[in-house]
Formats: sequence, structure tokens, C-alpha cells
Amino acid sequence: MKKLLLTPGPVAVSSEIMVEMAKPLIHHRTKEFEAIFERARNGLKHIFQTENEVFILAASGTGAMEGAIVNTLCAGDKVIAVNGGKFGERWGKIARAYKLEVNEIEVTWGKAVSPEIIEEKLDRDPSIKAVLMQASETSTGIKHPTEQIAAITSKRDDVLLIVDGITAVGVFPLPFDELGIDVLVGGSQKAFMLPPGLSFATMSEKAWKFNKTSNLPKFYLNFSDYLKSAKKNTTPWTPAVTLIIGLGKVIGDFLEEGMENIYRKRQVMSLATREALEAIDIDLFTTDEASPALTVGIAPEEIGAGKIISDLQNKYQMTVAGGQDDAKGKIFRVSHIGDIDRNDMVAFISALESTLASLGHNFTIGAGVSKVSEVLATA
Amino acid sequence: MKKLLLTPGPVAVSSEIMVEMAKPLIHHRTKEFEAIFERARNGLKHIFQTENEVFILAASGTGAMEGAIVNTLCAGDKVIAVNGGKFGERWGKIARAYKLEVNEIEVTWGKAVSPEIIEEKLDRDPSIKAVLMQASETSTGIKHPTEQIAAITSKRDDVLLIVDGITAVGVFPLPFDELGIDVLVGGSQKAFMLPPGLSFATMSEKAWKFNKTSNLPKFYLNFSDYLKSAKKNTTPWTPAVTLIIGLGKVIGDFLEEGMENIYRKRQVMSLATREALEAIDIDLFTTDEASPALTVGIAPEEIGAGKIISDLQNKYQMTVAGGQDDAKGKIFRVSHIGDIDRNDMVAFISALESTLASLGHNFTIGAGVSKVSEVLATA
Repeated sequence: MKKLLLTPGPVAVSSEIMVEMAKPLIHHRTKEFEAIFERARNGLKHIFQTENEVFILAASGTGAMEGAIVNTLCAGDKVIAVNGGKFGERWGKIARAYKLEVNEIEVTWGKAVSPEIIEEKLDRDPSIKAVLMQASETSTGIKHPTEQIAAITSKRDDVLLIVDGITAVGVFPLPFDELGIDVLVGGSQKAFMLPPGLSFATMSEKAWKFNKTSNLPKFYLNFSDYLKSAKKNTTPWTPAVTLIIGLGKVIGDFLEEGMENIYRKRQVMSLATREALEAIDIDLFTTDEASPALTVGIAPEEIGAGKIISDLQNKYQMTVAGGQDDAKGKIFRVSHIGDIDRNDMVAFISALESTLASLGHNFTIGAGVSKVSEVLATA
Repeated sequence: MKKLLLTPGPVAVSSEIMVEMAKPLIHHRTKEFEAIFERARNGLKHIFQTENEVFILAASGTGAMEGAIVNTLCAGDKVIAVNGGKFGERWGKIARAYKLEVNEIEVTWGKAVSPEIIEEKLDRDPSIKAVLMQASETSTGIKHPTEQIAAITSKRDDVLLIVDGITAVGVFPLPFDELGIDVLVGGSQKAFMLPPGLSFATMSEKAWKFNKTSNLPKFYLNFSDYLKSAKKNTTPWTPAVTLIIGLGKVIGDFLEEGMENIYRKRQVMSLATREALEAIDIDLFTTDEASPALTVGIAPEEIGAGKIISDLQNKYQMTVAGGQDDAKGKIFRVSHIGDIDRNDMVAFISALESTLASLGHNFTIGAGVSKVSEVLATA
């Protein structure tokens, strides 16, 4: 049986991209590589919907998240961190490692943060310098309301909105310039359908103003150096050449398909999967708006997620992700990003039905594939 | 004509490795990936010649260099930085970014540092906490005397020896435990014959003692987190999965060939190339012991290195590196690392002879290939 990687990062990478990256290695200080870099760089600006440079780091997403903080803030600065999952928790950890004062908003896993709480906190304490959040929290499948939060922060000259968009940028529209986001981070192994090892970041004019007074030490992640190099179609330190070659190809494919079509495709896969889960009596973990990057189902208590995940793996060669921390054993997470399409969603629901039936879950066999097909046909 | 990448990083990668990395992507939290990680990790310990863990970072070499500093030292610490080339200069830059007090030893490019100067400085100022150096300085082709310097620092409990071994580890023996080095850094795109995007680092027990009091902020590069994760065959942040799969294959090949044979092969290629250059009246840039990782030739003044490099590229599809800063236009650098062998060295010398002849350099045509063949036959 063919293997199907359905985790929300690392995601499945197409063999066309893999083969592109497998061509004889070229040096990065050549016209050939610089031309690829330029296309990737311009494509990233288009996808991030910004006139600002988007930096390409040889680091996984956590590196770019750290970069977002060290390039804008100072030790002792007060920040709000939206902690509604593993990645939200990470913002707090990074900020504390740099001795920022973290005001954490704990959000129940599977829920979205309330913009009102953020506004209240900012009103109450004008010394808060930044709001750190996920546009899409991969550990819970929730989509936080970036647009509404940006409407709050963009009115204030002295507050930055720093957004982890690792499973958001390229999955749904997140117009950086238009919304007034200040730092936005992406990663290769999520929406960009590449292996892990690259991350991306862009900064607004307001963030660059903060940068002037930021006193946190930095070298490898110093965005000022990336800015200087980007204009020359290179990076300050040796770039991850093969991954950037893959990025050039992915971005070419994205632009050809059109971002609106890609956003729609992910949205439809997400909707179809959610409705199919409900049709087979599997509750959804996300009770507010779901991120179109993934769907998170709650395993029937008497079965447990571990058994479902291992059966999908062993019997159907499908790799889905489990839950982390308290959600471990309780949920399973299936991706709608990477080199997967509607056919894979149908196959996944079918395999999940077989798995659940053999594990004794009580539902109408066929109701899930019927629903997923219906939504895909009509959406 | 076939392309030949002869730069000292990124280096040529074999198609076998490229194809290995092009296989369908697997998730990193799987037994399959953990088994590959474990083999890579054990192989790295063997090649670094240490019982300590060797960390695998999703970052290029500069990231691991920064990691070496932030995991061991404190703001205000005095360090000696051996600056005899672009990479030596980088130690000083990183250290100053973290507000260390840098005592720089400027070494003429193409010369090795004198261990006596280091010993004198350490004797004179017992508050110096570390010596930062390159085992092999890729910008000049020199091999600094790591062994003698380690003999000086390893006697002192309060001084660390921090070594950039990016074009050294895997090229010539640098027995970490035996010499008493304290932090040693390597990179994927050099001796490890992979694309750029990974770097490696290991720390001695003495370095871990420094780690306890080190107060420099760190998160993505926090080696304590890598140590915890390594024991579970993983990394704290998403690893660069495909590159680590390539690393597993390279290390398997290395162990099969035997490190002694690899060291010998690089040494012989280096010796043959140096003697061939002398036979065609090209002076060597390195006047002390050369690194076996690369050979650096001085272009005849009336021709200039730019013309030689572009002719090699345009007429023979061979990419060699030029000089940086003051050495720009004056030198060319040819690699002995990566997926290249004795045949490539013969081909390179032949192409160089043709190039030099067409550019009017006065020498006996054929003397170079004759010499390179002779050395390869008898070494």
C-alpha cells in the first residue's frame, strides 16, 4: 500500500519537488542560484502579501519565532503571549529565555482567543510592547482571530503584533500589509510543502522602528543582515541551497495555480473532513473556527486515539498525528496541507471508518465517505 | 561537459545521496526516523572521536558557532579569537554581538597562528575564559595547530578551547576527547558531503561546567535541550529530516570506507594538487601547513584570479572559489572535500593548465598533470 503522510508538518512533499532538489548541487554564489533566490523571494512577498522583504532562514520555525522576538524587543519588555496550545506555549518560553515579562493568556485547547481580552489588557497596561500569537495553532487545530487582533494592535504605535503563521501563510489569506501585522513567520515543512529546514519572516515598518532600539543579542538570526543580503538575492550565512531550490519550484507552482485556488482547496478539504467526522459520530476538538490546515477529531473514549493512529499506520500506511500534553491519547490530527488532495481525504475517511468499525465504534459505515464526497462535489 | 563543483563548501554531493534524500518524506516522530537518527548520532560520535553527544542543528555552520559561545560563556567574558581569515573574523563578530570582550590575534592570511602567542596571552591574563579558533580556515586554506593549542588549554580548568571544525572534522583526525578540545563544530555542506542546512556541535565535560554559569540568552540554540532530546534520538525543534536522512547514508558510507582511508584520500589529493600547482609555476597561498580540505593558489598578477575562475567555469564547467576581502581577485580555492576524487583532481589540473596557457601564463604545459599523476601513483 502506498504511504500517505497526513501529519500537519512535516507534510507530504511531491516527488516532482524531491527530484528538483535532487539535481546536482549548485553553489549559492552563482547567477543560477541568485535567479532562483530572486523568484523565491518575490513569490514569498506575494504569498505574505507584503511589500517588505521576506527573509529565508536555514532554521526550522522555532528559529524564526526566536528571530521575531530578538529583532524587535528588549530585555524587561512586557508582552502578551496567547497560549492556547503547544506553539502558543512556545512563545512564552522563548520570551522568558530572553528575560521578557510575559503576560500569558491561557486559552482552553480547542478554543480561540478573545480579541476583547487582548484589548482590555492593552488598555489597562500601556507599557505592553507586543502581542505574540498563532494565526493557526497546529496542536489544537484552532484559527485565532488574527484580523480582529490586528485591528486592535495596528491602531497603537507602541504595540507590535507578532504572529506565528507556520500553518497559516499559504493556507488561508493573511494579508500582512493590509491587516497591519508587524512580524509574521512561516515554515517550509507546512504550507510550503517542503521538507523541514527553512523558515521565513517578514517585518513591518513599525517593527523596524522597534528594531532600532531592540537590545537583545543576536547574530545568526539578525534580520538586519538578512535584509541587506536579500536585496542581493542571497543570505548572510550559507543558505540551505537544496531547500531553496525546492522553494523556488513550490512557489512557481503556487503562482501558477493561484493563491485563491489554493486557499479554496484547503478550505474545502477541511470542511469535507469535519463534516465527515461528524457523520461518523466523531466529535471535533475545535469548538471555535477551525484552521483549514488540519482537522482534529476526539477519539471515542473507550477506544483512545493511540489505537486509531497505530491502526491507520499499520493497516493503511497513513501517518496522522496524535495530541500533545493533556490531549495525548485523546485526539488525532489530520493535515490538509502538503502534497495531498481531495482524493487523499476520501481515502483517509474510508480508512478511518474501517479502523473505527474494527475497534467497535458505533456508527453507520459509509456515512463518512458519503459525506466527504458530497461536500467535495458541491463545495 | 559534466559540471564539477570544486568549491570548499557547498561541496559536490553524490547522486546516491541526493536520491536517498528524494525518497518520500517520513515524519520525524517515527521509529523509522529515530533509527536513522540513532545511526547518524553514533556515527558522528565516532567521527568527532568523542564519548559526548554530538548535536544536530537545523542551521548552517554560523548557527553552531553562535551556539558554541552562547552555551558556555557570559557577557563580559574575555576571549581570544584567532583571526586569520573570514571565519576567524566571524568568531570575533559573534562574540562581540554577545558583549564578550574580544582579544583578537590577527594572523596574516595564509599563515597559521603561533601557539606560543596564545600561551603568553593566557599566562599574562588569567581572566581569559576561552580561545576561539578554526582547525582549518577555509578562506585561506591554512591548518591551525589545534593539537598544540589544545595541549595549552587542556591544562587549564578555567579556559575553554572552542574550535570551528567545519572543514576539518571528517577531513583529518581531530580527536576531541584525546586532545581535550571543549567545543567542536562541524557542518553538513563541507566534509559531510551534503547540501547546506545542518551543523553539528559537541561539548566536553569542562564546557558543560561553564554551561552551568553561562548567562547568555538562548533558545533555538540551547544545547541543553539538544542533549535531552539526543538521548531520545530526536531534536528539540523540528529536525531537517531529509538532510538527516542524507547524513545517515553519508555516515554509513564513511564507516564502511574507514575514516583513516578518508583522511588519507583527502591528504593525497591535497598533496598532489599542491605539487602540481608548483610544477606549473603557481605559488601557494598557504606558507604554513595547508589544510587537506582545499588548496589555495595565487593567480599570476598579470592574469588575476577572476579570469582563471571564469574561464574554468565557462569553458570546463568547473566551479572553484575565489578569495574574499583583500584576497579577492588574487587567489583561487579548489576543494578536496565532497563527492570528488583523484580523477577530478587530474581533470582540474588539466583544465587549469589549458586555462593558464590560453591566458598567457609561462609554464611547461603538461608539467602539472604529470606531477599530479606521479604523486597520486606513489603516495
